[in-house]
Amino acid sequence: MKKLVVQKFGGSSVANIDRIKEVAKRVVSYKKHHQDVVTVVSALGDTTNELEELAFSISKTPPDREMDMLMSTGEQISCALLAMAVKKLGHDAISFTGGQVGIKTDKSHTKAKIIKIDAKRIKKAIKERKIVIVAGFQGITDDLEITTLGRGGSDLTAVALAKALDADVCEIYTDVKGIYTTDPRVEKKAKKISKITYEEMLEMAALGAQVMQSRSIEVAKKYNIPMHVRSSFSKEEGTMIIKDNEKMESVSVRGVTCNKSEAKVTICNVEDKPGVAAKIFTEISKSGVNVDTIVQNVSHTRRTDISFTVPIVELAKARKTIKILSKKIKMDNVLSDKDIARISIVGSGMRSHKGIAAKMFQALADNKVNIDMITTSEISVSCIINRKLADKAVRVLHKEFNLERIK
Amino acid sequence: MKKLVVQKFGGSSVANIDRIKEVAKRVVSYKKHHQDVVTVVSALGDTTNELEELAFSISKTPPDREMDMLMSTGEQISCALLAMAVKKLGHDAISFTGGQVGIKTDKSHTKAKIIKIDAKRIKKAIKERKIVIVAGFQGITDDLEITTLGRGGSDLTAVALAKALDADVCEIYTDVKGIYTTDPRVEKKAKKISKITYEEMLEMAALGAQVMQSRSIEVAKKYNIPMHVRSSFSKEEGTMIIKDNEKMESVSVRGVTCNKSEAKVTICNVEDKPGVAAKIFTEISKSGVNVDTIVQNVSHTRRTDISFTVPIVELAKARKTIKILSKKIKMDNVLSDKDIARISIVGSGMRSHKGIAAKMFQALADNKVNIDMITTSEISVSCIINRKLADKAVRVLHKEFNLERIK
Repeated sequence: MKKLVVQKFGGSSVANIDRIKEVAKRVVSYKKHHQDVVTVVSALGDTTNELEELAFSISKTPPDREMDMLMSTGEQISCALLAMAVKKLGHDAISFTGGQVGIKTDKSHTKAKIIKIDAKRIKKAIKERKIVIVAGFQGITDDLEITTLGRGGSDLTAVALAKALDADVCEIYTDVKGIYTTDPRVEKKAKKISKITYEEMLEMAALGAQVMQSRSIEVAKKYNIPMHVRSSFSKEEGTMIIKDNEKMESVSVRGVTCNKSEAKVTICNVEDKPGVAAKIFTEISKSGVNVDTIVQNVSHTRRTDISFTVPIVELAKARKTIKILSKKIKMDNVLSDKDIARISIVGSGMRSHKGIAAKMFQALADNKVNIDMITTSEISVSCIINRKLADKAVRVLHKEFNLERIK
Repeated sequence: MKKLVVQKFGGSSVANIDRIKEVAKRVVSYKKHHQDVVTVVSALGDTTNELEELAFSISKTPPDREMDMLMSTGEQISCALLAMAVKKLGHDAISFTGGQVGIKTDKSHTKAKIIKIDAKRIKKAIKERKIVIVAGFQGITDDLEITTLGRGGSDLTAVALAKALDADVCEIYTDVKGIYTTDPRVEKKAKKISKITYEEMLEMAALGAQVMQSRSIEVAKKYNIPMHVRSSFSKEEGTMIIKDNEKMESVSVRGVTCNKSEAKVTICNVEDKPGVAAKIFTEISKSGVNVDTIVQNVSHTRRTDISFTVPIVELAKARKTIKILSKKIKMDNVLSDKDIARISIVGSGMRSHKGIAAKMFQALADNKVNIDMITTSEISVSCIINRKLADKAVRVLHKEFNLERIK
């Protein structure tokens, strides 16, 4: 059987005509290696922003349906251009919109969910030896309404097509060489990870690694589709995201992530009785603020402090909600601190290795990094620390867990 | 019954966000007058050229199918933006692509013909009191392939929808105030014509008037759909294009047109025997050159001169073909003259009025304009003259036939 590769090129990979021509060459190289290719493309470089600007200059709240109508043209343009570029190289190619290729979604405009893919047409084109190029990020409803899939939508298109076509691999071409043990801009010794599990990748994405959106990884995990994150500017292999398996080297920690976009809120001297925390977080959540780490210490009096983190952009909203709450619930002053960072270690090996968290805390302590709050999951440990010490902490932990030697 | 208006706004009418907002106001004003509106839009100002440039920077001969995929995004963008602008004014609107609105075409990419319109969806939207906004210039095949209708395509979309919806009128909004008795840049006294017949309009378009493409007028004529050509920058009534009827003022000449894009070719001393002209024009036509006026004088010898006109841009091709022919057919030298103009008078009243042509020739002669070639149709007379005298001739004829006093 011939190998079938579904691949996705992001906006920076098709930023201009020269890059589109480069992508065309790369796509054609698969055919030369006797592989079938389905290529999903994002909109050209800045197109998405330009279209958004047009819309917002008409209305601050453009209707979602019309936004989808508008935004979906970005990917339609890039897929037509890439098809032209591939044909120019003498290979047969055909471009498809999400609708043409049978990507059926629900009706939630701007954040639609894929319901099913009717892959008949795409399979026919593959059989005819065509290089198939698909507009990412978009689908169609049963009423022929054009929908878009929201952030990370093109990755999702690629993974969903890989599933529908039973592809051997789903490649995500991007502007970095793969997933790194930590941000190479912070730690020069950061190493590209050759293999990582879906779970680790999801955890890293949730904790601040910005290469991949969680949504497509979740789908890949669900259907066990191997993903290959790699650079469109290099022939080098990138990072394989796969199911946990025994062949993978057993390491306790596979990466260090850092998130600097949160703020900490502390409500001082709240009454320590059942239902108070519930009331507070119900109200905050109702106001649309995403609360993350929550810490409430055991108290020996009848009052306690409650701390939690929120995205910095939602801090004002959170404080406003608490101010209203303070009329119903007894509390003293409310403190907030924007000067924090969340530093995390991630690795599925933690399940079987003991003492990883302790090792992390000790390493931070040895380097005079004070820990403010701690949370853990099955495969990660996170500490909230002073933001000024974040980069240092990344380097300390990267060294402590030997990540420069990871494979 | 409520009046239903189908209208089309050209690229200059939606050239930028401010103009789109103006168009939105105008569209909404119809609703305020309790009329239903279906609005067809062209692509924003320069979008079409920009997209073409992208394509041609990839390939000198981009595949037609992919060109349609690419070019159709222009109208999709403008219809989404206009729908947003109308909604912003507090009126319900919905945009549709050609495919969504059921404009079924054949498979001739870049110059598709409309086969039928399945207007169910658009009728439903009208019933729901929505302002319907349709992407012009495009359709869809039974295989869901996106097609475009070629030059003047958006006008055609509007007329075809007017037919399918049994609209009361099809308005063509453009950047001029209507059809003029002649080009106002040449003759300041040129007057806007209030009513003109389909036939006259077709003849004027064929003879050089550039406001309207023939294709949409032909469809309007076939189905007897009144067209209203008017300015999107003014509230003033424009020109109605309608069926010839008795109520229309009986004038012999309704307009003077001038075409400066032709060249004249003369083949000297061709053998004057049956089949020679046929051979020459078959070959020229095969080479893709559009021949217009042909003149061959009666000869008293066995040789004659044959003259004809071709578009200037096709002159080189025509000469090349004749050069090859000259090896098979006896002829002397071949002359060509780019310095010509076609000046024409058009009017369906000519059918019943005698002596119009003679009056034209006399007026030109009185003003020392020499006539080189003459052709006539049922409702027009054209003279080929020296291009330098063309503007003068326009003014002479405009005065001769009292066009400044037309209504």
